[in-house]
Amino acid sequence: MAQLRIALAQVNPVVGDVSGNAALVRAWCRKAADAGAHLVAFPEMALAGYPVEDLAFRSSFVDASRAALDQLASDLADDGLGDLVVAVGYLGKATDSADRLGVPKGSPQNCAAVIHDGRVAVRYAKHHLPNYGVFDEARYFVPGDTIEVVRVHGVDVALCICEDLWQDGPSAAADAAGAGLLLVLNGSPFEAAKDDSRLDLVARRAREGDCALAYVNLVGGQDELVFDGDSIVVDAGGEVLARAPQFDEHLLVADLDLPAATTDLPDEDQRFHGLQVRRTVLHDDPLPAYDALPGEIAEPLDDLGEIYQAVVVGLRDYVRKNGFRSVLFGMSGGMDSTLVAAIACDAIGAENVYGVSNPSAWSSEHSRTDAADQAERTGLHLDTVPIAGMVDAFTSEVELDGLALENLQARIRAVIWMGLSNQHGHLVLACGNKSELAVGYSTIYGDAVGGFAPIKDVFKTQVYELARWRNAEAERRGETPPIPENTITKEPSAELSPGQKDSDSLPPYAVLDPLLDAYIGHDHGSAALVDDGFDPDVVEQVLRLVDRAEYKRRQFPPGPKISARNFGRDRRLPVTSRWREVAPED
Amino acid sequence: MAQLRIALAQVNPVVGDVSGNAALVRAWCRKAADAGAHLVAFPEMALAGYPVEDLAFRSSFVDASRAALDQLASDLADDGLGDLVVAVGYLGKATDSADRLGVPKGSPQNCAAVIHDGRVAVRYAKHHLPNYGVFDEARYFVPGDTIEVVRVHGVDVALCICEDLWQDGPSAAADAAGAGLLLVLNGSPFEAAKDDSRLDLVARRAREGDCALAYVNLVGGQDELVFDGDSIVVDAGGEVLARAPQFDEHLLVADLDLPAATTDLPDEDQRFHGLQVRRTVLHDDPLPAYDALPGEIAEPLDDLGEIYQAVVVGLRDYVRKNGFRSVLFGMSGGMDSTLVAAIACDAIGAENVYGVSNPSAWSSEHSRTDAADQAERTGLHLDTVPIAGMVDAFTSEVELDGLALENLQARIRAVIWMGLSNQHGHLVLACGNKSELAVGYSTIYGDAVGGFAPIKDVFKTQVYELARWRNAEAERRGETPPIPENTITKEPSAELSPGQKDSDSLPPYAVLDPLLDAYIGHDHGSAALVDDGFDPDVVEQVLRLVDRAEYKRRQFPPGPKISARNFGRDRRLPVTSRWREVAPED
Repeated sequence: MAQLRIALAQVNPVVGDVSGNAALVRAWCRKAADAGAHLVAFPEMALAGYPVEDLAFRSSFVDASRAALDQLASDLADDGLGDLVVAVGYLGKATDSADRLGVPKGSPQNCAAVIHDGRVAVRYAKHHLPNYGVFDEARYFVPGDTIEVVRVHGVDVALCICEDLWQDGPSAAADAAGAGLLLVLNGSPFEAAKDDSRLDLVARRAREGDCALAYVNLVGGQDELVFDGDSIVVDAGGEVLARAPQFDEHLLVADLDLPAATTDLPDEDQRFHGLQVRRTVLHDDPLPAYDALPGEIAEPLDDLGEIYQAVVVGLRDYVRKNGFRSVLFGMSGGMDSTLVAAIACDAIGAENVYGVSNPSAWSSEHSRTDAADQAERTGLHLDTVPIAGMVDAFTSEVELDGLALENLQARIRAVIWMGLSNQHGHLVLACGNKSELAVGYSTIYGDAVGGFAPIKDVFKTQVYELARWRNAEAERRGETPPIPENTITKEPSAELSPGQKDSDSLPPYAVLDPLLDAYIGHDHGSAALVDDGFDPDVVEQVLRLVDRAEYKRRQFPPGPKISARNFGRDRRLPVTSRWREVAPED
Repeated sequence: MAQLRIALAQVNPVVGDVSGNAALVRAWCRKAADAGAHLVAFPEMALAGYPVEDLAFRSSFVDASRAALDQLASDLADDGLGDLVVAVGYLGKATDSADRLGVPKGSPQNCAAVIHDGRVAVRYAKHHLPNYGVFDEARYFVPGDTIEVVRVHGVDVALCICEDLWQDGPSAAADAAGAGLLLVLNGSPFEAAKDDSRLDLVARRAREGDCALAYVNLVGGQDELVFDGDSIVVDAGGEVLARAPQFDEHLLVADLDLPAATTDLPDEDQRFHGLQVRRTVLHDDPLPAYDALPGEIAEPLDDLGEIYQAVVVGLRDYVRKNGFRSVLFGMSGGMDSTLVAAIACDAIGAENVYGVSNPSAWSSEHSRTDAADQAERTGLHLDTVPIAGMVDAFTSEVELDGLALENLQARIRAVIWMGLSNQHGHLVLACGNKSELAVGYSTIYGDAVGGFAPIKDVFKTQVYELARWRNAEAERRGETPPIPENTITKEPSAELSPGQKDSDSLPPYAVLDPLLDAYIGHDHGSAALVDDGFDPDVVEQVLRLVDRAEYKRRQFPPGPKISARNFGRDRRLPVTSRWREVAPED
């Protein structure tokens, strides 16, 4: 057996910030060395950020990413870290690919490098390019055709990247190649309750490969994606040796006792699944014995806790990485904007959060008092701008009634928020939830205005659950609950016409949300939904609303992805479509 | 040799309207039979519409498309059209595919069927699934594994679908299989000047396959795509025998004299590029000799004419297929809204076009007179709603100046348009052009508001060219030119502050547009742009603007795609990105 101390650097790079990301990697290599690690691994595409999308087609960007890797190798040696073995993801390119339609010569690749002794010792390109859900890698990358096995202090370490592990092959290849450790670099986005399936997979692949497995993941928000970290180390039996906390940058250190590699290298022409096995020896001999440290195993968050945290991190990073300092949004005293206010305070501090109350002729008294109550609880800035004068200015020039008049109020509010945003530099948040978004219960260019929509992938029933969870959490910590109890208990209303209630237009959320989840999340058609037990009239009502709201949904700002399928990157429906799950009215 | 009269049905189906599309196919089969055709071919996915995007994941929709095909076969026989050989694209599924991550069991396929004698005689699935530019087929479909050769009146006809033809293989396979005709079903979107490359390809593949080639394409608009038709028949030497007009539904009939198939069928186990050659015999013997008709060869439109027509068709179909009857937009008297007005009148008739003039304190006299002049020339409805009172109502409650005050005016106008849209059911058009969109020279939730943006992929210099082209076209036809001459000759201005001109903020459009084309259309980085001969200071100014405007561009409505790469379906840049082609200011 051979000992090895590995460190998994669960970091938060910024897409496109090649020099900043290189500096981040360099700093965390220092931390790993200080922790006595022999090998440190960084996530998928850590140098370029992930996902880079069409930046992959800009050769200046690909070249910058490749140059940053070489510079990093040299800088680490200058730092006295040449002995440390560093595995890091970067954006590379296939130097000898053929020119095909849509896949230019020298196409980009999703790569991992191993740096040692001031140089890039190994380069590997991802084989399995995911092209479903949030992933578009078949657009951007060409696959690799090698399996890399690197001997580190007498241990054969096999490399792979993210999707490689989810498809069959690499773990069996690691087994066939006699690897003692399979090291997996990941950019695996958060999905509610995904941590369990991820751990199950890691354990299964370790057993299949008959080797330990180290899984390092990105952390942080990137547009609609949130990476939750949750880096894991398991032994060859699939037992967890170490696990990092979710949603925070973290250096996860684990001492491993692994089978020593055999001295004789197998045949260079060895192939597996058509991939050539390439071997690189950094150190033939195991390290002298040393005292191993116990591994730390963080507890995963509970279901509501991880959703709340995903939303907080998604918002914080969208604000920070886009160079904003503060956010502004309409505070109606309703449940959605109240939850967003609590989230914003947790994400960037109450001193950077600006709420605006825009009462109209039909606003309730509690819409003002509840907003004021929350401002006092949290310390956020609350301003009031009544809209009656503006409504009059429009209606004296243009005759509007019914829905057009309701929407007018929502749009006047949005003009005020955007004016304040332009004047003072705040990022405007849209407070709509997933249930409303699904059925189109919002005003385009009204409450749908903003640069980011923190709870767009959170159903209304979950909005209430998160509000209660956050207040309970405050009580556990001995802090003031941020959310007024009256907001949680009162009946939901858009307050755009006298006496209006959500329940006038929509089924109860306790019925609506599971129906939406089945229709949107699982693509059940109308017949399947009735088989699921939903009332046929409700199915008809809801599907009609959902099918007509596609354009509205597209105009909604981006927001953190929570569920397996949502209305952001995941979903691409035609706007112009006559497909109706239920027969049209006319 | 054997004679065969083929008909290419260049039709305009609607995505998702399975029964409507089946009725369309049935009606055009009747036309083909009336024209004496023996074989009629419909475009790719004609029964489902193209592209169906995530509807492909809804099994109720896939099942409906498959059922419609069987019903169509039976209906055609009932119509007495059982003898007609019908090739048609539909949405099918792989009945025995394995379950893989992101690619479920029984995955959808992009299929073609041959119907004869009341039944589906042949089913074929596309091999090459394009996944670049506007195409995402690797997300949706699994590829086929057969080559189908159908013997029709003694001629062996090989089938393929769209991208199959652009990649190497099928024409060589047709040659190897001894086919006399290669029939290609297409859903190939318009791109300026693409018709030449399409004809070149068709001629080359015919020569490679040593067989005649018939290429049938969709026509009409579908969200951001416009299909231009341009169906073509060439002989084995690549000479054009028939060609359909662009942008209109059309039945292209051609009489072909083709090599008779050999009586002996080759080995059933024949394979090509790993694909199994399957043969079906509908009729062994050639037809008795008949008098052939001459083929019609339509002249392609000139470069400006086809762009203008693409925009007109894109707008018309977006309005019609989404159930609107009329459009509304702000008429500032500027070049963009004036061109949009002319396009809208051509697309849906002046009686369905509503312009709104919204003068402010800083509007010029000619902004009103030019709009009125155009209303008179075209007969569109023009209404005037001044905004001064609304501006006052906002500024008396909220302190706004500079850019925030400029944007306020644009947003107040948008609230008026959306109010009128909600009240009267008009579709709002956004009049922004590609140059403005690229550099972010527009107001989010202001002039960027609307359901469709007809000229979003047309550079400002092209806007002027199209205006001159349209007026010249009117003069050729002896009609009143729709566009006031003063609008074409006056200097462009947003008129949001006193004396404002576009040239205060931007380089001249004659410099800006080629630079944008190189940066956006060809991914030239800053160094390459300077090598291209652009002034380094201008490159820096423009790239800084473009790199910061990604979020604004995303919020812009969809519009017809004109260029190889645009800001719609083609382009997917991260909003949150620190990559800057030029060093940031701070």
